[in-house]
Parts: sequence; C-alpha cells; structure tokens
Amino acid sequence: MTVAEVAVAPITFECQPDSYRHWILTLDAPLAHLSMKVDPSAGTLGDYELKLNSYDIGVDIELADAIRRVRFEHPEVRCVVIDSAVEGVFCAGANIRMLAGASHAHKVNFCKFTNETRLEIEEASAASGLRFLAAINGACSGGGYELAEACDHLVLVDDRASSVSLPEVPLLGVLPGTGGLTRLTDKRHVRRDHADVFATRAEGVQGAEAVAWRLVDEVAPPSAFEAVVHERALELAATSDRTPDADAVVLGPLDRELTADRVQYRYVAADLDRARSVVELTITADADPVWPLTAARELDDLLCHLRFNEPTLGTIVLRTLGSAGDVLVHDDALASPERHAQREISLLWKRVLTRLDLTARSLVAVIEPGSCFVGILAEVALAADRSYMLDGVFEDDDDPLPPATIQLTHVNTGPMPMYNGLTRLESRFWGLDPVLDAAAAAVGEPLLAAEARELELVTSTPDDLDWHDEVRLAIEERASFSPDALTGMEANHRFAGPETMATKIFARLSAWQNWIFIRPNASGPEGALRRYGTGSRPSYDRNRT
Amino acid sequence: MTVAEVAVAPITFECQPDSYRHWILTLDAPLAHLSMKVDPSAGTLGDYELKLNSYDIGVDIELADAIRRVRFEHPEVRCVVIDSAVEGVFCAGANIRMLAGASHAHKVNFCKFTNETRLEIEEASAASGLRFLAAINGACSGGGYELAEACDHLVLVDDRASSVSLPEVPLLGVLPGTGGLTRLTDKRHVRRDHADVFATRAEGVQGAEAVAWRLVDEVAPPSAFEAVVHERALELAATSDRTPDADAVVLGPLDRELTADRVQYRYVAADLDRARSVVELTITADADPVWPLTAARELDDLLCHLRFNEPTLGTIVLRTLGSAGDVLVHDDALASPERHAQREISLLWKRVLTRLDLTARSLVAVIEPGSCFVGILAEVALAADRSYMLDGVFEDDDDPLPPATIQLTHVNTGPMPMYNGLTRLESRFWGLDPVLDAAAAAVGEPLLAAEARELELVTSTPDDLDWHDEVRLAIEERASFSPDALTGMEANHRFAGPETMATKIFARLSAWQNWIFIRPNASGPEGALRRYGTGSRPSYDRNRT
Repeated sequence: MTVAEVAVAPITFECQPDSYRHWILTLDAPLAHLSMKVDPSAGTLGDYELKLNSYDIGVDIELADAIRRVRFEHPEVRCVVIDSAVEGVFCAGANIRMLAGASHAHKVNFCKFTNETRLEIEEASAASGLRFLAAINGACSGGGYELAEACDHLVLVDDRASSVSLPEVPLLGVLPGTGGLTRLTDKRHVRRDHADVFATRAEGVQGAEAVAWRLVDEVAPPSAFEAVVHERALELAATSDRTPDADAVVLGPLDRELTADRVQYRYVAADLDRARSVVELTITADADPVWPLTAARELDDLLCHLRFNEPTLGTIVLRTLGSAGDVLVHDDALASPERHAQREISLLWKRVLTRLDLTARSLVAVIEPGSCFVGILAEVALAADRSYMLDGVFEDDDDPLPPATIQLTHVNTGPMPMYNGLTRLESRFWGLDPVLDAAAAAVGEPLLAAEARELELVTSTPDDLDWHDEVRLAIEERASFSPDALTGMEANHRFAGPETMATKIFARLSAWQNWIFIRPNASGPEGALRRYGTGSRPSYDRNRT
Repeated sequence: MTVAEVAVAPITFECQPDSYRHWILTLDAPLAHLSMKVDPSAGTLGDYELKLNSYDIGVDIELADAIRRVRFEHPEVRCVVIDSAVEGVFCAGANIRMLAGASHAHKVNFCKFTNETRLEIEEASAASGLRFLAAINGACSGGGYELAEACDHLVLVDDRASSVSLPEVPLLGVLPGTGGLTRLTDKRHVRRDHADVFATRAEGVQGAEAVAWRLVDEVAPPSAFEAVVHERALELAATSDRTPDADAVVLGPLDRELTADRVQYRYVAADLDRARSVVELTITADADPVWPLTAARELDDLLCHLRFNEPTLGTIVLRTLGSAGDVLVHDDALASPERHAQREISLLWKRVLTRLDLTARSLVAVIEPGSCFVGILAEVALAADRSYMLDGVFEDDDDPLPPATIQLTHVNTGPMPMYNGLTRLESRFWGLDPVLDAAAAAVGEPLLAAEARELELVTSTPDDLDWHDEVRLAIEERASFSPDALTGMEANHRFAGPETMATKIFARLSAWQNWIFIRPNASGPEGALRRYGTGSRPSYDRNRT
C-alpha cells in the first residue's frame, strides 16, 4: 500500500499499553521508564520503514497515551524517564519517507498533534508534578531532540559518538516541526547565534559543547550513564507534589460507534453532514460521576478523529443537551480540584479545550432551548468563533421548552486557561476590563439571551422568526469561503493579547512550517524531502521571501 | 508591459513631495493633511489600473516618505489627518490585479513594507508625539481600513453608504495583509466574534454599529464631517510634545550610484556577489555631523533595494570601516537624544535596525582589524544571525592593523529596542540575566576578541590561521540551504521571549499569509485572487489544514 492509499483508512487514537508496538512502559515507583523501540514495519500510513526509532503519527499516539495513563493511573509515579531500547539511537525524529509522502493536511495535523503531546509533557510537570527526564543514550536528532527538549532534564551520553542535532534545515529544507527552535531560545536560553549554528549543523553537537551551549543539562560517560540517570530521576521525583496513595483513575476503553456519517460515543456524538461540510457535534450532560472524565476523553478523541480523518468538514457546530443541574454537579471538582482524580480530570478538560482552540475548523456554538451551556460547557461556547443564542422559545413546538440560558461558573474564570495564558473570557474581553468584570460578576446566574447579549457573551440572539435562516446562512456562508483563509483568520482571532512559548510554537513556528512544507523547495519533485536519501541533492529556487 | 516584465526593473524607494503621484501633502500647522489621490495609470509593476484609491508598492513608498518628511522636516506639525481626495472612496486597499500578477516574493515583501509603514505611524505617535487621524470620508476597505487602524483616531462619515470592511477572506481568499486582524483584537479590542463577523462580511459595517463594535471611534454626518475632523485633529495635536520652534531637518536627495554589481552611497556600499549569492555590505564611519542621518537613510534604502530587487542574494555580510572615535562622536545624541533632530535621527536608526531584523536574508557580521563595531554599529553586529571576530591580526599584511575591538555603549542598552520590545542584548541573553549584566558592565570598554567571546557577544573568534576558511565555509554553506527554511528559521531565532502586536503581525499573521498566498485556493488558476472580478467564482480545495 502507498502512503496515499492508506491515508484513506481512519487513524484511531485509542490504544492500551499491552498493545503498544513502539514503546515499553515499565513502572518502578516513584519512577517509570518509557522506552522507545519503534517497530520499523508498523507505520500507520503505509510503505515506509520506521528505522532508527523514527516516528509517525502512530508512534506519537502511543506516546500521548502512555503519558496520559501515567498521569491518571499511576499517582505513585513522580518522574518518567524517557529513553530508548534501540542500541546506539535515542530517536531519529519524524520519519522522512512518511513526511515526503503524506498529504499537506496530514503533515500539518501530525505536527500539531506531536506539539500538543510535547506541551502535555511540560504541562504534566508544571501542573501535575510529574517530572520528565530525557536519558539520551544514543543519537538524538530532529524530533528526537525536540522530544528531549520538552523534558525537565536532559542527560546525554558522552561516548564521542552520540550527539543532539536539528538537521531539518540543512538536510530536509524544512523546520524542526515540534517547537525545537522556539524551545532553544525561549526555554533553554540557547543564544540565538548558537541556535543558528546548531540548527544548521547536520551532525549536531556532542559532549561538553552541548552543555556549554545549554543544549543539554549534563553529560555522563557510558559507564556512569545509567547511574547518573537514576540519581537525577530520583532527585526530580523528590520535587514532585504527586500523592502516591491516591486512588488510580483507570482509563477504560471508550465506547465509540463509527459509521459513515456519524460518530457516537456515550456522551458525545457527531453527525457528519458532507453535503454542507459541517459536523453537528452534541455533548450531552449527565450527573453520573463518570461524566467529566468520559465526556472529556470522548471530545478529545472526536477532535483528533475529525482533524485527521475528516479534513473536508470545515465547520463544527457545537451543541449541548441536558440540564444545567447535571453539569453543575461536577462544577466544584472542575473549578477547584482537591484530589488526584479531580486534578487530572480538570487538567484534561483544560487540554481538550486547548485542542478545540487549535482545531482548524470554524467553530459555531448554537444555544437553543434544551441546551446546558453552563460552567465547563459554557467554556465550549466561549471557544467558538461565533455563538448564536435563541431569544425566546420555538413557538411552533407543541410543548415548547423554556428559553435557553447560559451560566458562567468559576470554571470559566481561572482553571481552563488557553495556550496564551488567559482564560477564554479574558481573551474575549482583552483590554476591556469593565466588560470582563461585568461577566465575572454574573458568575452563578442563569442568563437569558438578552442578558447574555448585554454582557457581550454571545454573538447574536435572533428570535424564533429569524433563527433558522440566520444560523443556516452563517453556516452555509462559511462553506463558501477559502478553507485556507479561514484557518489563518481564525488562528489570528482566537488568540488575543499575550503570547507564550506554546502560542509561539503553534502560530509563529507552525505557520512558517506550513508555508515551507508546501513550497517546491521542500515538497516539490526536486525538493529536499523528496531527494533525501536518493543520493541526489535538492534543487532550490534561490529567491528569498 | 506585463507585471512580470516590469518587475525586472528596480523599484526605487526615494521620492520627493513635489513628485508624488498619489498623495497630496498640505501643511496647516499644527495640522497636516495627507490626502490620497492615487493615479490609476501610475502602477509600479505594470499593466493594472489603480482604481478607487487602491495601492501598490509605489503608492506606499510615497506614503512612507511623506510620514518621514513630516517627522523630520515639519516639527510644527502635531497631527496628520489622513483622508482621500477621491469622491466617495477613502481607500480600497491593495490592488487585486497587482496581487494576482506579482511574484510570491514581491507580494510578501510588499506586505512587509506596508506593515513597516503602518507601524511607523504608530511609532511616530508614541515616540515623536505626531498624532494621526483617519478621516474616513468614503468607502474604506481592506488595506484602506488597515491604514485607518494604524491611526490614533478614526472618524467615519455616516452617510448610509460608507462602510469600513475587511473583505479579503470572503472575496479574495487571503488574509488582510497589513495587521488588520491583529489590530482588531489587540489594539481596538474588538471582540473576537465581532472580528469574525466583520472579517467575513464583504460589505462591511457602517455607522453606529461600527462604533458599537469599536471598529471606528466615532461617526459624523456628512454635513458635520469636516468640522468634527478638524476639531478632533486639534484635540489630538494638543496632546503632542512636538517642539514647533525646533529646526527642521531637511531630507535631501541621497547620493546613490547603482551599477550591475555594486550599490554605492556616501557611507554605505554593497558589493553584489551573484556567484556566491552574497551581498558584502560595508558601513563606513565618519565624524561628520551628517553621518548619523545619512548613514541611516542609506542603510534603509539599501535594505529595501535588496529585499525587492535582489531576491536571490540570500546572505548579507555586514562589515564596518573606520575608527571607533568617529562613531563615538555621535553616541550621546543617539543614546540620549535631547533635541528634535537628535530624537528623530535616533528613532530612524531604531527603525532601520528593525528593518534589518525583518530582512529575510542570513546576516553575518564580520569583525576584522580596521572595523568599528561600536555603539550604533555594534548594534548592527548584534542584529546578525552570527558574528565572526578575528582574534589577533592578519599576520601576512606588511603593516598589520591592530586587532579588532568591539565596544558597547548606552546605545546598546535601551534606545534601540527590537519589535519584541527588548534590546538586542536582552534578546540575545533572554533568561540569562547574569550574562546580560556582565555585558552591560562592559559598556564603554573596547573589547578584544577573547573578551568579546568571554562575554558571549560574538559567535566565533578564529585566529588568522583559521579565519578565511571558517568565514568562507560559513557563507558558502548558507548558500547551499533551502532559502525558505532559512527564512523560517531566522524569523524564529531572531525574536526570543515576549511578543508584541508588531511581532504578532510579522510572525503570526505574515507567516499565515505567506502560506495562504501560495496555496492554489488563492493564487492558482481557479483561485480567488485570479478569479476576482471575472464573474466566475473561485474553485476551492476544501481540505482544512
């Protein structure tokens, strides 16, 4: 099968440690070892070989799963050591054949997903007290070094052979795609001229020079490597606030039914309207204690599915169903988590919402009678590019449901920041403190359409007479625009105000990468990605832009 | 002539008000009126018509010139009113035929230049006390609205016909290219969902709604428009700290000689080495009081020339020539300007250096005996991606010059911030306060290569034996890399740490725009830019990335 043929088969994002093909997770509390041992023959997209611990989306899906499982299922683990079980190689980065053959949309979504996973490593350390140590016991290049950069501490074996490197620019004509450049200057404080030399030196940097340039934190000779890694890992573990005696939260299999035009989970469902290029996504609230975790995992899985497997469905219409009370049951735990389980579930929602922010689809929230945009679900509406709220009831219904309300809670005023470090309310009202204060003052009050409009919380509040036409036209219009222009516009509008390392990675670096990926110098027949490994040098258009 | 044919002729950046073809500058201190009246037949690139006050690079070059002249030559002016001398139209934005026909490199550089000009408007207000009022006396769309957004105050005529609009996404399949989206959310505090509606509504927003959404500051009926504009302009002028009795600084013609392989100004020269894809740029110091202004204007003109007219010369080697003393003569005025002339010259250097930061060419500073990288010229070296400093002398010279030194002054510790709001030293040592402090402590001391290396101010300090090979190989190597990847990499490395509205515009927005410009949905045969005005709708690849 070629890359193109296999890309038609849906990529699945759920997995279990006992079926990992590329990673070995070993528990040894307070440590865990996550050892990369990529199966060369198990590429997700087709006929390339995953040599030298190079990776594709399937490898990264397992990595993301492993990290999430350690967070939820192993509160006794305080430090994860990421190493390799392949002799002489830590990780060679993203597989070049895969990149050369994959569609543009796949490449971009692949980079986005791997970036989200690297950022989750950093967030797990900052918010969950789960430290990460990169034990670089062999050659570490490209995405391999970027994975290491996401860890708290990098130990490189000093064997006169192993180096860290970012060879993308000199060898492949593209950028390191997983935040590597941004983390050099902004996280590891590598001087920009050293960063320039490093990112253009294909063979990388070894030993003492790697420490002097701040590329790694320390080196250790082969004879002492294992002992140094163990010692440092225990030191990192000692800085953790994880509660080893907390109850583990087991992540059981998701209940998903996938048909041609519908994805149905327990609490989340999506109708795929291919004629209109629209996904009708509904989250149903429930008072069941499993709801927060299950609904978050389902929404997360669905967003990944849509990104990779349904690239032509350009608009997601967001709806909720159920009673406000059923959402509020879970509110305290999400807003002010006290125990291990609560903390991890709250942080998971935070990450799922950032996944929503970064999903390159137009997001339209539709707030109708019978909906429950309250607290964590109000946050879903605030993530939307626009929101439509019916003012009143559907008059023609025999027994009309009462008018919709929305309700802010403390979930909306702190614990769910976007990647720019602001809450969605703060982003919405950037530079408008009085408006932000008025919204904060409405926490706890169910708001009818007129009140929500007055507080600037919704975009438009048509009444029954105008409702169907206005919502329909807004969605139809979206499908008539250039998908590229919409992606660029939304990426600009969603992140007002300050930038962080994360937004720099997703905006500055990824947008450049998008451009570079599509240029003939990278992906054309004579481009570097295609020529790599053929023995022929790439042929470049030398115009600088 | 077609666009492609004419693009071969060099674009010139120098002009004089008496030869403007597109703007009328009227002085009426404390006000000036800058009225747009684009000559439809005077396009710079060829056979398109600049209808309805639409613009191309030539129109913007005159705008930039006019703003700079008012700053320097008219200290008595405190507020510039930007309006239109075309009935019923303020400005229709960038010309679509020009965009559809121009090369990718031209489009990107055109947007960069126009952005720099819009940012200069804002900087003139913030730093020079020169206020700007947009008197929107007719239809104002796309780049027309973005020009208005750069002003301090926007007055829109309320005639039930004139609107402000950003029709790029719905009509052209590209983004507003001059910071329009970023300024909506980050400067004008337009809510993101209003921004979403506004930037997808081709017909725009009029009257009271434009005020309610914060798109303009006020509206005035046609009968009162002129009076309101005049009154507001005088109010803005009253907030200025300009000194009307200061001596005007006249910007005389530049002394430039342009030959096939050399651009020679009075103090700045560039040898164009097409075989190696290199520009050898030399700035010669002089104690002449005219040096700071003249050298800054020459360097600025050269950078614009290289960007537009020499796109295949991918590396700029930066050299200086002269005595440190000749540079230091001007240092106090540049570091702590007191008078009108000094302030404007210091601010001009600041802007020229930001133009250098944003020039998509690899910048290599070469610090040899006979050079004078001191103060403002040390800043040029700090702007480089790498710097090479000879340790010692050229032994083979009959009468070797003494070893090179570099010297920091207070010019390097404050008055020349980059667009990220940091000095180049702060950017270089982001997160490394002790290293930054050590550099600051060396202010005033001439530093030999070993000292400069110890203070982390230079990249590499080869001695005579290694010098030629190391510098030559670094430059040759650069020419072997993908120009696209280099542009993306350098744009990432040059701006460590925080982001500002300006860096968001140049990084986030421009990088997305680069990508969108080159996609078939915009510039392909069936793309929106090509189909615009033909009566046929564009045909879009519906994949979302």
